[in-house]
Amino acid sequence: MGNTLGNIFKITSFGESHGAGVGVVIDGCPAGIDLDVNYIQSELDRRKPGQSRITTQRKEADGFEFFSGVFEGKSTGAPITILIKNQDQKSKDYDHIKDIYRPSHADFTYQEKYGIRDYRGGGRSSARITAGWVAAGAIAKLVLRQLGINCQAYVSQVGDLKLEKSHQDLDLSKTDDNDVRCPDDRMAKQMFELIDSVRKDRDTIGGVVTGIISNVPAGLGEPLFDKLNAALGHAMLSINAVKGFEFGSGFEGVKMRGSEHNDIIENKAGKIQTKTNHSGGIQGGITNGEDIYFNVAFKPVATIMQDQDSVDKEGNDATAKGKGRHDPCVVPRAVPIVEALSALVMADFCLLAQTNKLRG
Amino acid sequence: MGNTLGNIFKITSFGESHGAGVGVVIDGCPAGIDLDVNYIQSELDRRKPGQSRITTQRKEADGFEFFSGVFEGKSTGAPITILIKNQDQKSKDYDHIKDIYRPSHADFTYQEKYGIRDYRGGGRSSARITAGWVAAGAIAKLVLRQLGINCQAYVSQVGDLKLEKSHQDLDLSKTDDNDVRCPDDRMAKQMFELIDSVRKDRDTIGGVVTGIISNVPAGLGEPLFDKLNAALGHAMLSINAVKGFEFGSGFEGVKMRGSEHNDIIENKAGKIQTKTNHSGGIQGGITNGEDIYFNVAFKPVATIMQDQDSVDKEGNDATAKGKGRHDPCVVPRAVPIVEALSALVMADFCLLAQTNKLRG
Amino acid sequence: MGNTLGNIFKITSFGESHGAGVGVVIDGCPAGIDLDVNYIQSELDRRKPGQSRITTQRKEADGFEFFSGVFEGKSTGAPITILIKNQDQKSKDYDHIKDIYRPSHADFTYQEKYGIRDYRGGGRSSARITAGWVAAGAIAKLVLRQLGINCQAYVSQVGDLKLEKSHQDLDLSKTDDNDVRCPDDRMAKQMFELIDSVRKDRDTIGGVVTGIISNVPAGLGEPLFDKLNAALGHAMLSINAVKGFEFGSGFEGVKMRGSEHNDIIENKAGKIQTKTNHSGGIQGGITNGEDIYFNVAFKPVATIMQDQDSVDKEGNDATAKGKGRHDPCVVPRAVPIVEALSALVMADFCLLAQTNKLRG
Amino acid sequence: MGNTLGNIFKITSFGESHGAGVGVVIDGCPAGIDLDVNYIQSELDRRKPGQSRITTQRKEADGFEFFSGVFEGKSTGAPITILIKNQDQKSKDYDHIKDIYRPSHADFTYQEKYGIRDYRGGGRSSARITAGWVAAGAIAKLVLRQLGINCQAYVSQVGDLKLEKSHQDLDLSKTDDNDVRCPDDRMAKQMFELIDSVRKDRDTIGGVVTGIISNVPAGLGEPLFDKLNAALGHAMLSINAVKGFEFGSGFEGVKMRGSEHNDIIENKAGKIQTKTNHSGGIQGGITNGEDIYFNVAFKPVATIMQDQDSVDKEGNDATAKGKGRHDPCVVPRAVPIVEALSALVMADFCLLAQTNKLRG
Repeated sequence: MGNTLGNIFKITSFGESHGAGVGVVIDGCPAGIDLDVNYIQSELDRRKPGQSRITTQRKEADGFEFFSGVFEGKSTGAPITILIKNQDQKSKDYDHIKDIYRPSHADFTYQEKYGIRDYRGGGRSSARITAGWVAAGAIAKLVLRQLGINCQAYVSQVGDLKLEKSHQDLDLSKTDDNDVRCPDDRMAKQMFELIDSVRKDRDTIGGVVTGIISNVPAGLGEPLFDKLNAALGHAMLSINAVKGFEFGSGFEGVKMRGSEHNDIIENKAGKIQTKTNHSGGIQGGITNGEDIYFNVAFKPVATIMQDQDSVDKEGNDATAKGKGRHDPCVVPRAVPIVEALSALVMADFCLLAQTNKLRG
Repeated sequence: MGNTLGNIFKITSFGESHGAGVGVVIDGCPAGIDLDVNYIQSELDRRKPGQSRITTQRKEADGFEFFSGVFEGKSTGAPITILIKNQDQKSKDYDHIKDIYRPSHADFTYQEKYGIRDYRGGGRSSARITAGWVAAGAIAKLVLRQLGINCQAYVSQVGDLKLEKSHQDLDLSKTDDNDVRCPDDRMAKQMFELIDSVRKDRDTIGGVVTGIISNVPAGLGEPLFDKLNAALGHAMLSINAVKGFEFGSGFEGVKMRGSEHNDIIENKAGKIQTKTNHSGGIQGGITNGEDIYFNVAFKPVATIMQDQDSVDKEGNDATAKGKGRHDPCVVPRAVPIVEALSALVMADFCLLAQTNKLRG
Repeated sequence: MGNTLGNIFKITSFGESHGAGVGVVIDGCPAGIDLDVNYIQSELDRRKPGQSRITTQRKEADGFEFFSGVFEGKSTGAPITILIKNQDQKSKDYDHIKDIYRPSHADFTYQEKYGIRDYRGGGRSSARITAGWVAAGAIAKLVLRQLGINCQAYVSQVGDLKLEKSHQDLDLSKTDDNDVRCPDDRMAKQMFELIDSVRKDRDTIGGVVTGIISNVPAGLGEPLFDKLNAALGHAMLSINAVKGFEFGSGFEGVKMRGSEHNDIIENKAGKIQTKTNHSGGIQGGITNGEDIYFNVAFKPVATIMQDQDSVDKEGNDATAKGKGRHDPCVVPRAVPIVEALSALVMADFCLLAQTNKLRG
Repeated sequence: MGNTLGNIFKITSFGESHGAGVGVVIDGCPAGIDLDVNYIQSELDRRKPGQSRITTQRKEADGFEFFSGVFEGKSTGAPITILIKNQDQKSKDYDHIKDIYRPSHADFTYQEKYGIRDYRGGGRSSARITAGWVAAGAIAKLVLRQLGINCQAYVSQVGDLKLEKSHQDLDLSKTDDNDVRCPDDRMAKQMFELIDSVRKDRDTIGGVVTGIISNVPAGLGEPLFDKLNAALGHAMLSINAVKGFEFGSGFEGVKMRGSEHNDIIENKAGKIQTKTNHSGGIQGGITNGEDIYFNVAFKPVATIMQDQDSVDKEGNDATAKGKGRHDPCVVPRAVPIVEALSALVMADFCLLAQTNKLRG
């Protein structure tokens, strides 16, 4: 259970950090989509390790291959399988945790649930799995491109450093111009320095990624339990290390009064729009045509380069050693993951919405 | 689409605010559960309107009837249908919004999606629908009672008034002692006064409900896309007016360093536990046996007793009148809803976990 | 589990033979469908008991009410709930089977599965449940009417009496002209006499219902595991007393050679068609535009008016008495059920097919 | 859509006849199952082409590799991915059908549905895809072995040659002793000769595979729409070339009277059993502990070594050439496929049944 996401445009994820590789099956991709190999690889490159000194030093090209579902460069309606082989796995690095539970990792919980676990690099609970999601998300983006829908994300907070600007006051085309993936240069520099200093401390720090979905048609989302916001939240809360999701006014909105929070509706040159957008583009679970925006909270990465007290499988006191190759802060590499999952959700809901009315 | 929640313990919701009533079908409830009618009604009473002067004055007894699935007071494994008939609907009150979109309601989005809508009291998008969820949640609680699992919730914030205490420093048995459902008396009084003053201003205000799930066995939750936190978030984001969900350290956790955030594991008298619980009882999507705790952000109710600018169906300027009977702040009545949904998710995941290992 | 059928146009069934009633929730019905109450009732009337002396003498008007999902006579996109209350339940009639397992009924298996059962009239395993399916199927037919698709069925065999004519050589408008629902008058009379003589013997007999779906567009059906034929078979095998399903050439087709069985493709006045139709309108799980036809085998009804040896719950020898009101042959009343389920499957797959291509 | 089968033990199929290969992801396999590589390969060997002169001459070793989900030889609860690479694809052989629709193949229907198709060897609609199902089925069998449940199948009919013996009068251990996979030697020889003579005629012929599931506990199956018989029928009707499914008395049972068809219940040495088994081990969709038996009808293979009239994509008259490598009769190789699918269904329903009662 639990390895499939989506209703119509549906992905099934598989793979482990230190097995043969990771991958994904995409079922329900409409036929006839040009599967631009370079574009998909470029999205994977945004997530891959070793991009800068503030990301993990594991070396993975994250090259992918199509195993099925593609014919003459196009989707055929058949399931698309993508394989991303592991190359730089150093499983020996993990012998020390074979029997020791690392604090705030999933070692103990997997062991409790299954009675067995692939301990090498976190096995199935590793963030390496998200490579497959990013590849699938790239295909979802190619689908959405045909509808004009755009899924973007950027780093809006690292530790205490919070970008107070709204996404509308930012130039999101600059997001990838720096290693942090914050489109505000000045803030990006501060964030970089903070992450780098944390790294030198052999420690880690959390952050926030903001997602933006623009040029969205009204009418997407399925009440009541498949509200678009619930689906987006579900997807984001599936990402490793995520502790929270908010959209529109979010947690800050609870402080407001209805008279300020309500988005007044107006007719702007023939299009019904809202003056403000505290709703975050979604009302009653359904899009109203305004931008969707949301925040995703990431805790500090659990692997730190410090020894920590813990216990082993038998319950004896033990030390979890600070070893391995890891990110001091996950948010720069989480940006393409947030984009990928939002694209997967949007592609799914665009297809679902095609069933709302009968087409004779 | 969208009216079903759950995998094994599964509810299908139906009904409208001003139709015959609301209800729910529960499929997958284990056989042989005593369906205590008084208990279910007492849960409905916690959600029903007209409880105090800070809730809507609509009068609904919210009495329920079993239409199916019960035999000699017990569940039989057949789907349990619960009907809650509407009694005090005043549909005439809604003639004024037949053709006018209320700001920050789902009027416009439903119209865009379906090309038709039951405008009376918000129709399907009304929070009245949650009565069925609460009834189903009461049955889920009866299931969980047999496993010793406890789902509780309380109001932890109204507007700027935020209860800074941890749930461990509160006596949750006092939650229902006041109309706000905040277990801290002093704070409850302040919150009550704030809500009442907002009500007198013919306005509304937001708030936060905190959920606590205690006495949880380790090993619940299905990686990767059915992480328990993702399922809880999904359910909570399905509640009307919810704008955010966080669990464990949540959005505050992003400011922390890994060395402080990590929950050190220790063996306490033969049970593997953690010293702190920033993880919120869930690691890698799976419970570790610690308390689950989470926050749910509710925006201010969209219906205010003030006139607002808007447009009608033809796109002409129009005024949305401040009429009807509504809550100045939704969180006191949201407490049983949050509990109900958390119980539904937990019952479902307890049953799902029964499939993780083969039982010969 | 098990009370929901469909992917997009989805029904959830509930109710018992001798409880408050039976019913269904339809989720995913497109908005704006005229829900013709008279038509739905006329379909229920075709299934209801007491139609003639060869059907059960239980008296049920099978009147229905909409509990949700309808506004001003139209579907709104919200779940449609239909309730059909029981009126003529004589639960006392079933005291004799409270602890005794009737041969070839589901008494023993429900008891084994759930450890509890509503024994009155078969409880959840009663064919009375299909009333809700027929009501839902009537709505599916109203959807399909807009697409021009037609779902019909008729009795093609009772005991040894087998109608050898193809559906193309029959006038299906005559199906309801007789109590057997066989469109061939001569055969209908023989079948009636056979059923009536079996009834007088206090016995029962089996039969076959043939289903025909005509005016079907090409391209419906989802390979590999949601082939249209698999979905139809699944639905038909869900009907009480069904022991087999075949489509197109079916079991007879195994005797043929490829050179006779293959349906030669030709261009008839601009439309690609096949000369023969051994495929039954489905190739590779997907419709090719020819008529879909299939047979559904019904065993003789298990309740006979004769005493039978059996055991009680404790495993002691016991006699299952021949009591109650039942059909000597189920196929005349099964015709509207087969039609209803085929309509439900077709409506679902028409909506699903709307997701096969991206609509910009 | 359509590439996933199962609820808890769930497979997602992928691959094409002439692409990189075929494969399957198994999600929901319980942790800790020994994944016996030799056994899985031996099952694949039973399905692979080129076994004898009455099967296709395509040469495929059908060697498989685990890509994920296996650790130290055991399942871990993570999704198990199996890849089976294509080796002997001769795509050139299919240039002649690039634009021509082969009679009774899925060429036309895929083209209509998707507007594009991988024509090489039938692409996604090829029976080669079932290799992945057989590998997954082998794992399901390993699961069932722990429960003592046994899934077997054999050829019971080829053309007019029908084995009239019941499965109880056969020694199923002899099924694989001959190339036809019929456990009755004399009949097997006749069948072989018939198939071989059809082959020499450059033609094909149909047949029936009988499935037997023995040592089944009572209580498996989920009423109403997930009856075990409906799930088995659904799975069998998903196999290429299948035109019918019947269980227990099947189509013959319609001729019987209730008094002969009913399975009298008796207490045999403390176990409640039935004297006869016309029910085929399933009553009301739930197992009663008797053997499950069913028949699956396969049409003659559509590819014949003869030219046939057809049309091309533009609707012009064309000739479909008799070329390629194919089976003159599919049933000998269908035996392991029927077994595999029945094992997949049974493993799924065994796990589902673990949720019927609450386990404290």
